[in-house]
Amino acid sequence: MALFIGVDIGGTKVLATAVSSTGRVVRTAVRSTPGRRVESRLVEDALTEAVQEVAGIRRPAAIGIAAAGFVDAQGERVRFAPHLPWQDEGVRARLAERWSAPVVLDNDANCAARAELTYGAVSGAQDALVITLGTGIGGAVVLDGAVHRGYNGMAGEFGHMQVVPGGRDCECGGTGCWEQYCSGNALVRFVRDQGVSDLSGPQVTEAALAGDETALAAFASVGEWLGVGAANLVAAFDPEIVVIGGGLSAAGDLLLEPARDAMRDSLVGAAHRTVPPVVRAALGPEAGAIGAADLARQRFRTVGTRARARRRAARGTGQRR
Amino acid sequence: MALFIGVDIGGTKVLATAVSSTGRVVRTAVRSTPGRRVESRLVEDALTEAVQEVAGIRRPAAIGIAAAGFVDAQGERVRFAPHLPWQDEGVRARLAERWSAPVVLDNDANCAARAELTYGAVSGAQDALVITLGTGIGGAVVLDGAVHRGYNGMAGEFGHMQVVPGGRDCECGGTGCWEQYCSGNALVRFVRDQGVSDLSGPQVTEAALAGDETALAAFASVGEWLGVGAANLVAAFDPEIVVIGGGLSAAGDLLLEPARDAMRDSLVGAAHRTVPPVVRAALGPEAGAIGAADLARQRFRTVGTRARARRRAARGTGQRR
Repeated sequence: MALFIGVDIGGTKVLATAVSSTGRVVRTAVRSTPGRRVESRLVEDALTEAVQEVAGIRRPAAIGIAAAGFVDAQGERVRFAPHLPWQDEGVRARLAERWSAPVVLDNDANCAARAELTYGAVSGAQDALVITLGTGIGGAVVLDGAVHRGYNGMAGEFGHMQVVPGGRDCECGGTGCWEQYCSGNALVRFVRDQGVSDLSGPQVTEAALAGDETALAAFASVGEWLGVGAANLVAAFDPEIVVIGGGLSAAGDLLLEPARDAMRDSLVGAAHRTVPPVVRAALGPEAGAIGAADLARQRFRTVGTRARARRRAARGTGQRR
Repeated sequence: MALFIGVDIGGTKVLATAVSSTGRVVRTAVRSTPGRRVESRLVEDALTEAVQEVAGIRRPAAIGIAAAGFVDAQGERVRFAPHLPWQDEGVRARLAERWSAPVVLDNDANCAARAELTYGAVSGAQDALVITLGTGIGGAVVLDGAVHRGYNGMAGEFGHMQVVPGGRDCECGGTGCWEQYCSGNALVRFVRDQGVSDLSGPQVTEAALAGDETALAAFASVGEWLGVGAANLVAAFDPEIVVIGGGLSAAGDLLLEPARDAMRDSLVGAAHRTVPPVVRAALGPEAGAIGAADLARQRFRTVGTRARARRRAARGTGQRR
């Protein structure tokens, strides 16, 4: 069995996984991300260590990288990454050379959506929106059963759609961006504004699941904003299903029920259409790495098929006129 | 040469056209739309008259209908139309029977986008957004060189994306919808709020083109909202080009320059991507009818091709193993 590895690199950690053909994670390795203001080589060293640990003595058939940043349409360069040292660098070719192995590269939210499409909550659907709520908002668009990457490879940047004119300042330089109202950061801010300080997003989630009133109110607010923003996206794309992933989705219906209510209230023509179900992602925090491995598998398992097709063609059968 | 007819039916008029294979309108006929609170038959009588006038003594090979309303994903029914009597009616089959001819049906904004794709401003692009500014906002999404209709056939309903929480009331029942700030109605409202009453959208456009300060300010405001909303859609879809059609596009750069400025200011990662050009639609007010005729042509000119394929298959050649 060929070995396909997926690596998710975010602002805090590197997660490498060996993934089976059914999407099961059979082995993992974790490293800390060395930071943003370091040489790119240090980040690539961490990636290399994690990949080596997962591979052991085996030689990977291909490796997929899910990067927290803008990846170009060709899957060659990381154009910009707020939490990584890569700034417009040809990461794919450099790592392929270093590792002497085929490497594929995509944005982390796209990889997570690919994993949900192949093995998870999007499975069987043709058109879907995948909204990933972590510190900020990641997103991906599934169209005709594939992740739609867009002209620059930047489709699905939902977090920076403006929902409040002149609203809260955003790190992107804009104001009133959706992720300022609907994200882990928004959750933490809500609780802090109620006088409860020093809670992380996961702690707020835990408190909400334990029934804490303030934490529940925070999820009601974030959930409502999720529904309003999702309604905007549904008006534009008209998908079959909306999938919510990321850390906040651990709160389940505490997040999703207010989102469903707000989406139904806000969605144009709700009485004349099938309103898409809003469901929780199936794969959890390993989705990005699983999707990266799947991308590697889909791209490089076809080599055998192509070779067979060539042999068949050489025998003069199966050709079209 | 086969005759293909496209008919655009809006809230005020029915425009029937005979369209050449190069997209040229060779003949037109116009009727008034009888209204919303009449029997459906009266609207279909007006359609029939317009089609007969365009056809003359010839028999149409197929007829396309561009309807101002929600058309289902199968292109069979008008689910809901704010300005027409059709409410969830199987319009396509009924007209095909009445006319004894093949009929195809789609939403008017989708048809206009199809015309721009085949003959106009979208020609050659794979992914585009087409935003049509008339009384309200119509829209369409072009993906991989085709109009993306969505799960319910309702993709592209951009006008009812919320851009101002708790903002202006909208006819759809929502508040703060984009078309309340960016449309012919918004233009008229802006001018009226400045104390100039009783001007129509086209009159405001005319005044702006003549240099009137208030009308220019109205276009600056509507154009800025156009850019902010377009930036949201570009963040989500990452298209190659943004095309602006409809009556307001007659103002050209008076509308498009403020839109381009606002889009560039508001778009995430503008420094790391190709910002899509915002251009005026090429085809003008006949775009919907031209696109409907093109839809009919594409669907029914293949009959001959299919028959040839069947004959070839019967001879035992050209089959796949």
